[in-house]
Amino acid sequence: MPKDGTINRERILDAAQHLVIENGFAATSVDQVLRAAGTSKGAFFHHFDSKLDLARALTERYVTADIGQLHAALDATAQISDPAQRVVEFIRHFEDSADDIMSAQSNCLYVAVLAEQQLVSNGTADLIRHAIDVWRAAITELLSAAATSRALDLGDAEDLADHVFVTFEGAFLLCRSTGSPEHMRAQLRVLRRLLTAALSAGVPA
Amino acid sequence: MPKDGTINRERILDAAQHLVIENGFAATSVDQVLRAAGTSKGAFFHHFDSKLDLARALTERYVTADIGQLHAALDATAQISDPAQRVVEFIRHFEDSADDIMSAQSNCLYVAVLAEQQLVSNGTADLIRHAIDVWRAAITELLSAAATSRALDLGDAEDLADHVFVTFEGAFLLCRSTGSPEHMRAQLRVLRRLLTAALSAGVPA
Repeated sequence: MPKDGTINRERILDAAQHLVIENGFAATSVDQVLRAAGTSKGAFFHHFDSKLDLARALTERYVTADIGQLHAALDATAQISDPAQRVVEFIRHFEDSADDIMSAQSNCLYVAVLAEQQLVSNGTADLIRHAIDVWRAAITELLSAAATSRALDLGDAEDLADHVFVTFEGAFLLCRSTGSPEHMRAQLRVLRRLLTAALSAGVPA
Repeated sequence: MPKDGTINRERILDAAQHLVIENGFAATSVDQVLRAAGTSKGAFFHHFDSKLDLARALTERYVTADIGQLHAALDATAQISDPAQRVVEFIRHFEDSADDIMSAQSNCLYVAVLAEQQLVSNGTADLIRHAIDVWRAAITELLSAAATSRALDLGDAEDLADHVFVTFEGAFLLCRSTGSPEHMRAQLRVLRRLLTAALSAGVPA
């Protein structure tokens, strides 16, 4: 039977992602990944040049999924004609999926990457910056349309757009430190309510 | 000349804090801490039983400083008689100190601790949960007073209070991933403006 290299690579990445999110990157050894994935050192080094190369591949895959979730929320709300209502429903889309997100993982891979300078310096963190840029651009467009339609001043739309990333990451850390995954849904609800208030009143300087 | 043990302990903690925030805990060796602190292994193990004990001491000191900053902001705004205005000025207090915070550190120690399961499991993360509880209680009191004085529904005041922690931690990660420390001030400004809107309009369910 021919070996399916793609399946093996994905299995290694799945095992590594779980270990790195739980334990951190430096605290995860290649041997631990091999044991968890049920594969050999040879198979590992067939797919990855080094442990740092694995970190890069992990982050690339995670960023792709992250941007996929952004697009899913944009698509799910594309038919809403009122731009301000679309912003609110865009956030509600994530609020509704918060419990599913937190049942699949106890923290965000981005936290593990950003905790270690070796991954910041070697360009792995640049992949996260790319995700931030894509989210910022899409949400800035949503917010600008909403501000125009309601003749509101929302302040700097890019900073406000970044607050969605900030809420996700901060909520991951709140969940992790308290051991209570329901904080993710609660914090996305707080964000939705604050944005609803801002879209009704504007945001004073 | 007698050795001053307290000064030595603080010097080790200062060096370790910088290294752990930059590189992560697992990626920081005791030898690196000794070199950065200019001290000996004997001095280190006089003050700390183990590397994990160092992590606990680091986090204890950081939590004490964190709660100190909360109290400084409460004290600085204690004379403001309008409870809603006090909430806004309480956040502005941190906004005004954001650049100083970010010139002293590139990330939050909490991120390094929460990235590693060994520190979550051994009780180090419980120290962070204590800090979260203290911030939550103090800010919930501020928000509840503001909601009462303006007869507003602010939703769950504890979740809204947690959003301050969430904003700080998420903004640290935004700064770290983009290499732009000015995002801390920008995100605290976003939080202040969103809270100002909420205190003017309330937050619809």
